[in-house]
Amino acid sequence: MKIINTTDSNFKEEFENILARAKTDIKGVSAIVTNIIDEIVEKGNGAIKEHILKFDKWEVKQDSDLEISVEQMKKAYENIDEKLKKSLHIAYDRIKTYHEKQLPKSWIDFEKNGSILGQKVSAVDRAGLYIPGGKAAYPSSLLMNAIPAIVAGVEEIVVCTPTPNDEINELLLAACHICGIKKAFKVGGASAIAAMAYGTQTIPKVDVITGPGNIFVATAKKLVFGEVNIDMIAGPSEIGILSDASANPRFLAIDLLSQAEHDEMASSIMITTCDKVAELTSIEVDRFLETLSRREIAKKSIDDRGAIIIASDMQEAIKLMNEIAPEHLEIMTNNAFELLPKIKHAGAIFLGKNTPEPIGDYIAGPNHTLPTGSTAKFYSPLNVENFLKKSSIISFSQEAIDELGEACALLADTEGLTAHAKSVRVRLEK
Amino acid sequence: MKIINTTDSNFKEEFENILARAKTDIKGVSAIVTNIIDEIVEKGNGAIKEHILKFDKWEVKQDSDLEISVEQMKKAYENIDEKLKKSLHIAYDRIKTYHEKQLPKSWIDFEKNGSILGQKVSAVDRAGLYIPGGKAAYPSSLLMNAIPAIVAGVEEIVVCTPTPNDEINELLLAACHICGIKKAFKVGGASAIAAMAYGTQTIPKVDVITGPGNIFVATAKKLVFGEVNIDMIAGPSEIGILSDASANPRFLAIDLLSQAEHDEMASSIMITTCDKVAELTSIEVDRFLETLSRREIAKKSIDDRGAIIIASDMQEAIKLMNEIAPEHLEIMTNNAFELLPKIKHAGAIFLGKNTPEPIGDYIAGPNHTLPTGSTAKFYSPLNVENFLKKSSIISFSQEAIDELGEACALLADTEGLTAHAKSVRVRLEK
Repeated sequence: MKIINTTDSNFKEEFENILARAKTDIKGVSAIVTNIIDEIVEKGNGAIKEHILKFDKWEVKQDSDLEISVEQMKKAYENIDEKLKKSLHIAYDRIKTYHEKQLPKSWIDFEKNGSILGQKVSAVDRAGLYIPGGKAAYPSSLLMNAIPAIVAGVEEIVVCTPTPNDEINELLLAACHICGIKKAFKVGGASAIAAMAYGTQTIPKVDVITGPGNIFVATAKKLVFGEVNIDMIAGPSEIGILSDASANPRFLAIDLLSQAEHDEMASSIMITTCDKVAELTSIEVDRFLETLSRREIAKKSIDDRGAIIIASDMQEAIKLMNEIAPEHLEIMTNNAFELLPKIKHAGAIFLGKNTPEPIGDYIAGPNHTLPTGSTAKFYSPLNVENFLKKSSIISFSQEAIDELGEACALLADTEGLTAHAKSVRVRLEK
Repeated sequence: MKIINTTDSNFKEEFENILARAKTDIKGVSAIVTNIIDEIVEKGNGAIKEHILKFDKWEVKQDSDLEISVEQMKKAYENIDEKLKKSLHIAYDRIKTYHEKQLPKSWIDFEKNGSILGQKVSAVDRAGLYIPGGKAAYPSSLLMNAIPAIVAGVEEIVVCTPTPNDEINELLLAACHICGIKKAFKVGGASAIAAMAYGTQTIPKVDVITGPGNIFVATAKKLVFGEVNIDMIAGPSEIGILSDASANPRFLAIDLLSQAEHDEMASSIMITTCDKVAELTSIEVDRFLETLSRREIAKKSIDDRGAIIIASDMQEAIKLMNEIAPEHLEIMTNNAFELLPKIKHAGAIFLGKNTPEPIGDYIAGPNHTLPTGSTAKFYSPLNVENFLKKSSIISFSQEAIDELGEACALLADTEGLTAHAKSVRVRLEK
């Protein structure tokens, strides 16, 4: 694995490459995706059928073929291995408990002059969850997207997932059963996003669309943003690790590889203050690589997009990591919590030697849908707020408007809005 | 003003027209705006200079001409009328107090097995506020956008506003002074949005862009979404009023007009359970219209996009209003608070006869930047969260990973991710 040093003469250039890791250019697919969306808007289910025949290679004979029944989900659930069932339930319970702590409350507050100000929090009516299918059909994605919507109190949850050759992952179905999903459709890609954004004869129009996907899905989400809300536009997965001399190179190596195995485009970066840890980790990466089922993917990711950076001290290491703003950040030092105040940007932060990133993918509780490509500088992990919206509450008493009305009308006057001013002043007439 | 009844044979059609009120089609301007953005990305300040010469009709001789100095802001503040100054300070203080109540805290929570889970809340590094200029230069827009960013703790706030003919609104400058704005630029339209999203030689790249604007600004915000975060995509202003027989038709009329005077595209809809209130309000609208400085705009808005709907009861009225999901909702009934639980979608809710909507535009405290065109179904008012982002915190103890590690690894196994599973199992080795 490539080791670079912040004192290298070409470090700045190397680091720029790391920062540019995930500049996915959506322009190339924008025209195609716009077309797909237009077709769905125009023809609804008719377009979906064409897209499924073309991309997923099966024929939809009637609209009801698009639906996945709750019986199918229940059966899949009943058929899975007991140990796995238990693991899914542990995951479900822990994810739910964590997200319940995120739930904000409506509030009101009172002023002496009798005015009441507040904020009403309510769930969106309908949420659409996009879950990738085929070889990348992850039941954990379903849990991580459905549970915040459930906790938020969304009344109608719609799931779309592609089913290449009309085959569907049984574990995904089992996860749907655990989450109590009532409406799920065998539709994927940009078609699914468009269908949920605009509605078709079969698929309801939703208010919010969340979930991971390839560049076509990401582009479609961006294009329908405004018609519906979306969670974020995410790219390939990534990990950043901060480590010092106390860290175990075997742990560091396998954690780097756990991101690398996702995708050739995934990026695994460690910044360490210890030369020796850098060197040993690199050796361990090579060793572990041999044992992985997805070694080709992991190797290409590590070779093309992986790096170990040796920093002169932890302050420099943190500064660089904040610039990277990684999706996942592991702090593998013997004072992990003490560094937390200095961490400005990261999707999820894993502290200490017993917290490998995959713990967060499945079972810890926090969401695994996280901002990538430095967007942790402004996006948050998927959370209950993605399925909520707020309304301001304002109630003025006669005393309050008597006290504040003229100041308000004056501001309206200066903006040249006479009806605004008048609407206040008619309330001041005695 | 047009009065329709839910029992009219063509009501459904009429109501569909109301719902379709604000379908602004951005496709028409998408190509133009994409071009503007590309020019800014490629040429930076050079492109800004060209755009200013073309649209704002003045010549930027050097980069520093783009900047508005803090001295200029201070001077403008010192020159304004004392009463107006006081009003601006009242508004500033009340808006700040309200938004401080929105500020979420970082939190952590502990489990018996020694694991620690939490959520770190932090401000974005840089926020960009877009404030429309020229005749629509509203100091209140500056307060409403800057204060949530200030309360969130954003370190660097950048303001962009167009200055047609190199003229700038003195009140806007005064508001900048009150908010302690340090960086402001005389750049407008899609150029400003692109400059803040990508950065130029003079204008810093920001993390979040908020603020109102015309269709070019709205389209640019949509196109840069993902490169930065944005607040929402907003269209023309609108009001919905629920009223019963207890409501004062004069109040209702002037409140409807206070939206109508914004824009010919603005929409003012009242749904009432009382025929007589409908009729009297319509008469009062005509009377007040004569007195308004912006009567041409208001009249066109009322004629083309205004309506009074007579509903058979309050339940039906509320159902229709939830479908409209208005930006501003006034509840002018004698039991306003009791209706609040049934209100599902609205940007801001104004309760009772003493709470005209303009109170919320200037001085009540809640934000006046609100979702329009039914997007209150999924967007929230501008608030401090727009300037914050969250990071999940996860720390597992040896006991926690011993307890949960195998369930986690099993889920990774089923997803075919062997490095994920291994990264957990190496921690279980004794």
